[in-house]
Amino acid sequence: MARERVGILGLGLIGGSLALALKGKRGAPEVWGCDRRKETVRRALSAGAIARGCTEAQLSACDMVIVCVPVLRAAEAVRRLGPRMRPGTILTDAGSVKSGIVREGERAAARGAFFVGGHPIAGTEASGFSAADPDLFHGRSFVVTPTSRTDAGAILRVERIWKKAGSAVLLRMDPKVHDHVFAYVSHLPHAVAYALVHSVATLPSRVPLGYSAGGFRDFTRIASSNPEMWKDIVLENRTEVLRALSHYRRNLALLERRIAAGDANGLLEYFGRAKRTRDGLLTS
Amino acid sequence: MARERVGILGLGLIGGSLALALKGKRGAPEVWGCDRRKETVRRALSAGAIARGCTEAQLSACDMVIVCVPVLRAAEAVRRLGPRMRPGTILTDAGSVKSGIVREGERAAARGAFFVGGHPIAGTEASGFSAADPDLFHGRSFVVTPTSRTDAGAILRVERIWKKAGSAVLLRMDPKVHDHVFAYVSHLPHAVAYALVHSVATLPSRVPLGYSAGGFRDFTRIASSNPEMWKDIVLENRTEVLRALSHYRRNLALLERRIAAGDANGLLEYFGRAKRTRDGLLTS
Repeated sequence: MARERVGILGLGLIGGSLALALKGKRGAPEVWGCDRRKETVRRALSAGAIARGCTEAQLSACDMVIVCVPVLRAAEAVRRLGPRMRPGTILTDAGSVKSGIVREGERAAARGAFFVGGHPIAGTEASGFSAADPDLFHGRSFVVTPTSRTDAGAILRVERIWKKAGSAVLLRMDPKVHDHVFAYVSHLPHAVAYALVHSVATLPSRVPLGYSAGGFRDFTRIASSNPEMWKDIVLENRTEVLRALSHYRRNLALLERRIAAGDANGLLEYFGRAKRTRDGLLTS
Repeated sequence: MARERVGILGLGLIGGSLALALKGKRGAPEVWGCDRRKETVRRALSAGAIARGCTEAQLSACDMVIVCVPVLRAAEAVRRLGPRMRPGTILTDAGSVKSGIVREGERAAARGAFFVGGHPIAGTEASGFSAADPDLFHGRSFVVTPTSRTDAGAILRVERIWKKAGSAVLLRMDPKVHDHVFAYVSHLPHAVAYALVHSVATLPSRVPLGYSAGGFRDFTRIASSNPEMWKDIVLENRTEVLRALSHYRRNLALLERRIAAGDANGLLEYFGRAKRTRDGLLTS
């Protein structure tokens, strides 16, 4: 069997890190890279992250193509690439929102080719190939979002690549469940942090927040994430994000009413229940 | 000049850590400790944190008394201790909310004695003497909240103690400004995190949030704080916390409207402005 050839579309933080993570690993595939910025391809080549830079059309010579472009551009890319995939090859992605892309991918994939939705749980506030890091996925989770139509062998081949790139925990989740869960545990916290920073922005500018604020730095770190990327994510997962926000708003209103009423027992119940929930969620 | 004698009322996380931090330091005062739980005093004595356990009445033999009991019990303690302070001695505290306690302290302090409001910026999710840590204040900030009535020499004496305990940054803030700022950078983030955890509590229990959620663990860490303590803090700083919450709610509603409208430019502006604010706040 010839050495597997994997093509990466988009050599930004995720695609670039994946290429770097696979570099030199035992049994790693040959990696081809494609990026709309020629300079990025040149840098990936000189870093040894990819064996060859190629055009989008040339990606169809690969056994697996991993779409690592921003969420809102991924659907178009999948629509263009899908019909060009050869039988037995796999088209997959690395986006943070899954229902839409999985629907598009299954529709677009050529007969005999497979689409598999994927989501590596990793990232930093930085972006672009210059922020790419071979250890970005080390010890982190990788989520595959199969449907009833997804080929079992294709799932395993995709998981194998990410395990080789460092992922330590492999999860499988229905695409809709994925988008619901991540609306709550990732997209909602980001929305909340962004709104919090806007509120704090009104404080007297001479207050040295950097050290005066217990936990504030950690808490709002995620508000330093890439605005373009988060615009795409909340739009792509709009329905679930709005549901989570509305649910969250009701929980916050309850807290506000108990503070306004000076309801000591109610507050103790509210904080105590949250603490038990949080402690439980993380140890389970 | 005789060796300074400092009395600590309340040997929990803050009082216990302060005693441990001063232990054995060059030029450190003799530390007396008082706690309503005899067992805690016994443990502080055997840990060498305090030189002597004493009653609340005996604290008046100290040159400085530092009230380290929970926020809602601090006012009563100050009302009891104030009249017993000898001329030239200092009554101070370590609470997270300052306007009320400073007002009480200045009213209660005996003629010739001084009251100084203090707030060490440190803490963990744990509480009690068993969680006390000699390094809790190391490198952290200590805020003094003087008024026009506060004695300049007394401020310096209080700051000297906390510096010896490890505080690296000394800040001075009007009590009202303090409560306004901390409503935004500490109390509001806690409220927000508690409400977030309540929302996440509805997720399917089989989802392994511990590793699936990028940033979720850090983000909600503060929701594991002591419920009793946070009940006290939001009640003591109720007016400012409600103002901050209402302001925050408006910022969140704006974000929600932009998501619902699919307003890509509006979202980019919202996230971009938050990122610039956050990055700016922490480097200034």
